[in-house]
Amino acid sequence: MDQERITLAHGAGGQKTAELIERLFARHFQNPDLTADDAAVLSLGGTKIAMTTDGFIVSPWRFPGGNIGELSICGTVNDLTCMGARPRYLTCAFQIEEGFPLRDLDAIAASMAETARACGVTIVAGDTKVAGRGQVDGCFITTTGIGELLPNIRTGGALARPGDDVLVTGDIGRHGSAILLARDSYGIEAEVTSDCAPLWPMMEHVFAALPQGDALHTLRDATRGGVGTVLYEIARESGVGIELRAEAIPCAPAVQGLTGLLGLNPLYLACEGRLVLFCAPAVTDAVLAALHETREGAGATRIGTVSAAPAGRVSLITELGTRTLLPPPTGELLPRIC
Amino acid sequence: MDQERITLAHGAGGQKTAELIERLFARHFQNPDLTADDAAVLSLGGTKIAMTTDGFIVSPWRFPGGNIGELSICGTVNDLTCMGARPRYLTCAFQIEEGFPLRDLDAIAASMAETARACGVTIVAGDTKVAGRGQVDGCFITTTGIGELLPNIRTGGALARPGDDVLVTGDIGRHGSAILLARDSYGIEAEVTSDCAPLWPMMEHVFAALPQGDALHTLRDATRGGVGTVLYEIARESGVGIELRAEAIPCAPAVQGLTGLLGLNPLYLACEGRLVLFCAPAVTDAVLAALHETREGAGATRIGTVSAAPAGRVSLITELGTRTLLPPPTGELLPRIC
Repeated sequence: MDQERITLAHGAGGQKTAELIERLFARHFQNPDLTADDAAVLSLGGTKIAMTTDGFIVSPWRFPGGNIGELSICGTVNDLTCMGARPRYLTCAFQIEEGFPLRDLDAIAASMAETARACGVTIVAGDTKVAGRGQVDGCFITTTGIGELLPNIRTGGALARPGDDVLVTGDIGRHGSAILLARDSYGIEAEVTSDCAPLWPMMEHVFAALPQGDALHTLRDATRGGVGTVLYEIARESGVGIELRAEAIPCAPAVQGLTGLLGLNPLYLACEGRLVLFCAPAVTDAVLAALHETREGAGATRIGTVSAAPAGRVSLITELGTRTLLPPPTGELLPRIC
Repeated sequence: MDQERITLAHGAGGQKTAELIERLFARHFQNPDLTADDAAVLSLGGTKIAMTTDGFIVSPWRFPGGNIGELSICGTVNDLTCMGARPRYLTCAFQIEEGFPLRDLDAIAASMAETARACGVTIVAGDTKVAGRGQVDGCFITTTGIGELLPNIRTGGALARPGDDVLVTGDIGRHGSAILLARDSYGIEAEVTSDCAPLWPMMEHVFAALPQGDALHTLRDATRGGVGTVLYEIARESGVGIELRAEAIPCAPAVQGLTGLLGLNPLYLACEGRLVLFCAPAVTDAVLAALHETREGAGATRIGTVSAAPAGRVSLITELGTRTLLPPPTGELLPRIC
């Protein structure tokens, strides 16, 4: 470790991030409550809660379909949602560059408040720090949330089982594409808006419609590393294989066009309003029906199934039935995507 | 607001920070749980908890007496402590500059783990983001904590009453002085270490020793703006006057020398291991006796009293009995002190 330095890949949410967490943070902080899931599940005075934190450094701070303020609420609300917890209270900490326009900060705070209201969470504490010009780029936000666990839901990255169906709640790769286009580095024009959205209202509807809560095994929001990274994480944590039907993966034509031009795989482009969901096949229809009744889940669809082997691998099955391995996440993704 | 921009004073913890919070954040986020106290007091499934968040951007990251990792745990633990809450769970979010040495990050994480252990809190979730060179300066950390409220303690910035004694738990201005010296901008050499310390163990002892919990009215840790800023906040929130006996304010000779040389007031230099404490005079001796039995409270002393008027003002009474107004906090303090 002596000569090593932090690289952008350490922050990309892929293999290098996992290594950094394992070798450094998990080694020092290890305890039974610190897991690889989206939020920690804790007991406090007899109440079961979930708690999670997320830092947001997205650049540019405003993009088609959202801004860093909205994103900072969605990210944390969605992490709590994935543990089957009703989001209740959020805190937010700002690190702002000297010279940042107050009207932009005002727009960010307005978005945060509006998004929080939309999913019934309250912002209960905050902190503001200012760093000199060139010591922080614009405005960084860290949000932390706590929520109450629903009594009948228990999800986790290690709970996927062979035979499970794999669903995604909408088309993939929108957020990453929107940021790419907003940076305007490629001279490409396309109409793509971020999928950035708080998903508690959608999942509250699904949880309520479920005939049996324990048939829902794993929920995870596909953020930084995209759906591909999340599927690889779950395959590893659950010790299962995942088989995706390539033609079933929903992707907007504009996103397909953009990723085709740039040689990117939409499975590795960030989403900010999409969950992957593993459930027993007996409840798949009920889950999809409930999702389709919501705005955020209107495009939900089954994209694959879970197999016992090869454990830790994600495969793609083409329409013709040929099977290829989805290339594992490399970490060479876009910096500052969220 | 249209042409205004964020200045370093907005982050200094003084008047400008208060204005920013009031005009911008509080306006958007307003709700009954969002107060001016160190932590929000919340109800979750029948359990009373406190929740707080704090961002740390101190420069340099390592200083005599501590580092940003230790500081990031102390700040949040101390905010929970001030609400009479036993700190239980923490999250931490890192924003790291590309090129930051891994061994320094390792040292920071080791300090965090050690400090957390010392006060019985667990780090349950984290997040790592990396920004490019020049987009963040070194390593920023945001910690968020939750704790269980003790049943018999109720403190708040609005609960100080005329007649209360004002105590401070040790000598003031150490953290600010240590950072000043660590920056080496003035060519001054002096031996000052930061007072950076987690104060839950100290206050747990005081809470247990208290004959009546409701005699302890206000607790606040004097961080960014120092003891002076905190006293002005409490004077305003409680609508009372505060009279300090100038000669009773504990300050190490090296801190006195440094502040004398630089024309600074030690009452406005940051502390990171000192609380101000307002209590009914009937319990002052018991509180001081309990504080003196702890390592962090060994230098605790009474520095003044609360009067009904002039409300919102802090006065200094000299040995000769003359009275001057403590100049209100201006916000022109050191940037990136914590």
